[in-house]
Amino acid sequence: MNEPEAGASPETSSTGDVSAPGGLSRRGLLGLAIGGGVAGLAVGAGAGLAGGVALGRARAAEDAHSAYEFFGAHQAGITTPVQDHLHFASFDMMPRSDRDDLISLLQDWSYAASRMSQGLEVSASGAVGGPAEAPPDDTGEALGLPAAGLTITFGFGPGLFENEDGDRYGIAAQRPAGLERLPAFLGDDLDPQASHGDLCIQACADDPQVAVHAIRNLSRIAFGRARLRWSQLGFGKTSRTTAAQATPRNLFGFKDGTANILADDTEALADHVWVSEQDEPAWLAGGSYLVARKIAMLIETWDRVRLSEQDAIIGRDKGEGAPLSGGDEFTAPDFHGKAIDANSHVSLAHPEQNDGVRILRRGYNYVDGNNELGRLDAGLFFLSYQRDPAQFISLQRRLSTDLMNEYIRHVGSGIWAVPRGATPGSYVGAQLFA
Amino acid sequence: MNEPEAGASPETSSTGDVSAPGGLSRRGLLGLAIGGGVAGLAVGAGAGLAGGVALGRARAAEDAHSAYEFFGAHQAGITTPVQDHLHFASFDMMPRSDRDDLISLLQDWSYAASRMSQGLEVSASGAVGGPAEAPPDDTGEALGLPAAGLTITFGFGPGLFENEDGDRYGIAAQRPAGLERLPAFLGDDLDPQASHGDLCIQACADDPQVAVHAIRNLSRIAFGRARLRWSQLGFGKTSRTTAAQATPRNLFGFKDGTANILADDTEALADHVWVSEQDEPAWLAGGSYLVARKIAMLIETWDRVRLSEQDAIIGRDKGEGAPLSGGDEFTAPDFHGKAIDANSHVSLAHPEQNDGVRILRRGYNYVDGNNELGRLDAGLFFLSYQRDPAQFISLQRRLSTDLMNEYIRHVGSGIWAVPRGATPGSYVGAQLFA
Ligand code: HEM
Ligand code: HEM
Repeated sequence: MNEPEAGASPETSSTGDVSAPGGLSRRGLLGLAIGGGVAGLAVGAGAGLAGGVALGRARAAEDAHSAYEFFGAHQAGITTPVQDHLHFASFDMMPRSDRDDLISLLQDWSYAASRMSQGLEVSASGAVGGPAEAPPDDTGEALGLPAAGLTITFGFGPGLFENEDGDRYGIAAQRPAGLERLPAFLGDDLDPQASHGDLCIQACADDPQVAVHAIRNLSRIAFGRARLRWSQLGFGKTSRTTAAQATPRNLFGFKDGTANILADDTEALADHVWVSEQDEPAWLAGGSYLVARKIAMLIETWDRVRLSEQDAIIGRDKGEGAPLSGGDEFTAPDFHGKAIDANSHVSLAHPEQNDGVRILRRGYNYVDGNNELGRLDAGLFFLSYQRDPAQFISLQRRLSTDLMNEYIRHVGSGIWAVPRGATPGSYVGAQLFA
Repeated sequence: MNEPEAGASPETSSTGDVSAPGGLSRRGLLGLAIGGGVAGLAVGAGAGLAGGVALGRARAAEDAHSAYEFFGAHQAGITTPVQDHLHFASFDMMPRSDRDDLISLLQDWSYAASRMSQGLEVSASGAVGGPAEAPPDDTGEALGLPAAGLTITFGFGPGLFENEDGDRYGIAAQRPAGLERLPAFLGDDLDPQASHGDLCIQACADDPQVAVHAIRNLSRIAFGRARLRWSQLGFGKTSRTTAAQATPRNLFGFKDGTANILADDTEALADHVWVSEQDEPAWLAGGSYLVARKIAMLIETWDRVRLSEQDAIIGRDKGEGAPLSGGDEFTAPDFHGKAIDANSHVSLAHPEQNDGVRILRRGYNYVDGNNELGRLDAGLFFLSYQRDPAQFISLQRRLSTDLMNEYIRHVGSGIWAVPRGATPGSYVGAQLFA
């Protein structure tokens, strides 16, 4: 793997190579045109020019970090410095879709994603460059906005490989053994409308309008092949993936991401995040597994807990984020004395208590309005990347005695295999269909 | 009115004067402590120091625009350059609350708002500076974040003055004649969970975490006196209030805010936005009326409309935002020729077609996940400020033949009288109780 790691590199990539599989497929183009009373061909005429970049959305790159390369050894959006905003979407394939639909969808998505991550519109004709008699290829709300650090990360859920309708795409035999719906955990209260899905897209950006634009346009391109199942907006990241990022705070008011795996820790990434050439299945080498958990936080209850008790529950102090055993935020916690409760969150989650298991966390805060009692419907949209789903499962089981459990409810759940990054001219997941 | 206009001034205010009515009221402090098993007094001890600013949330002001003064002739958040993020909340007073509750609530809210808008915590002891045996005054998730241009704007709904329980606060006689629930409009499909409310708070900031922190802490302070009724997050403003701001785009992909009233147009503000000394009632002079409309946009349907038709519906072109009668974005539209359809949105909304009526728009995009058909639950959270509710009503009636109506549904509605700004040492709405 000598290719650049997509997203991990802080350099602004050139806008040159966005020529994935030669533009949107005919299916993708038809998807855009359906219902507009316009022949697919008319849109196609515009989109056919899409190999180039000339007419794309204006780029007003503000700094070198504002655009991440889509192509690379790993997909962008995993080790990429965590952006401020998230739009996450889960999709199900349409009932009668076939293998060609799935392949063309992944090609179209990769093509559009490679363009959008460079601040370009989904196709060369975009929002206003096509024929006036056709619905525009791009919905336009990101016109004039820079790439804003957009990364688009695709994942394949267990149901993509096989579901009650069987092996629709001829890939059942390729399902990674560990890729199955997560087991039930103590206290789970899962909403099917925030759980599971054949495919997922994680769009992260420093401007929510850019992340929303990406999900909206990718949903649109999926027309007739896959359908949005659920989606989630998040803000104010609750983790960090580089030492340069200040540790953000979650809605309990605590620093979150202190002990995370960082982008430059190649060894930890190899050990805990990337599926290796030696792991099974081979097509997933260079990829990872993504777990999403929508975790409601009972913030009004939490807010009535006294400060010392809040500190004890987490195992770190609220002000600095230092372990209660002493030192500053980055001092290693000492679990041998009595300072840190054995059932504190940090004690239970720490590698020392988990046979060395680590994960890369990449969650966001969410607020979905409020319930009828006037309580904010808020929490953590937890996202973690790991080399094997077993890492998350063992950690989450260990958290069954977490003092924090009184203040949280897991209400959504999903798991996806995240293929390695696409090479220019190819698409995300190509190895699965080779 | 010689005081500075809060929020309109681009200068960073000094952090000096945040000494509203001498800190949180005893009720406010009890609200914070309730359920924590801690005497209100203990928290009070911390909060009693609140006149100073020493222990406040760290300020990392990035530029001169990052903090707006809370006190001033007008409330901040009206003409203030539109920030990127919104958390809007509507509250109902608690059933058995009395006049003192309402006054103390407004005092506590003003005090906390004046601090938070300077990047400080809600009280001097804040999130981590109080006694370890008490729940912290501040929830802490904004610790270390700058003020991020936060403005907090308070409004009084019709039900505050009088409802089925009568004149609870002795202010029924002071209700502005025009302050009543908006009439039903053609096509309204209102959700009570996104409509009305005794009080409202509009929190705008350039960081959503800061806006959410403000609403969360103000809800908490309201404990026992008022309760959150509904709330809405918004992003990617759909308007602008200064010529320096680039016109943003709404979720139809069109530039929005081109013809808005701008902060430096003193004459238009006096004519169309601020309640004058001559208007009734006198206590509202220097204030305004806020209308909120949650408008769902059927974006999947819109996205299938051909470009020329989209342009015709709006009356402007999607790329530049120029009127279809020619010129550039800022050329005045010409409605005498045939270029602009008489039922286009801009034609119907333009002052020329409305006896000169204008409003100040300050809306945001919203995305609340998706529905079961896989369509994004998205739209415009429309906010407008006007000198008289009749301005909005006549405009909205005029829009009954709007070509755009096929693609939108009004699902939420509210109206509030927005008092003038507070003077240091006093609180928002004091004139109402004088
Ligand atoms: C609302 C739910 C959660 C909250 C509020 C929360 C909060 C925190 C906080 C404040 C820390 C300490 C700072 C840091 O190192 O990041 C932390 C650490 C950690 N959390 Fe969570 N967490 C939540 C859920 C979870 C879940 C579901 C998992 C995995 C199953 C998890 C795994 C970890 C791990 C591995 C660490 C690092 C422990 C260490 O190495 O010291 N957390 N979390
Ligand atoms: C989803 C709903 C709406 C959308 C997408 C929308 C969009 C637009 C757009 C694109 C413009 C042209 C650019 C500009 O001058 O800002 C505009 C102008 C305007 N809109 Fe709306 N609007 C919506 C609802 C409303 C409502 C409910 C009202 C008031 C009742 C309103 C009042 C106005 C006014 C007064 C103008 C300026 C007209 C002029 O002076 O040229 N809009 N709107």
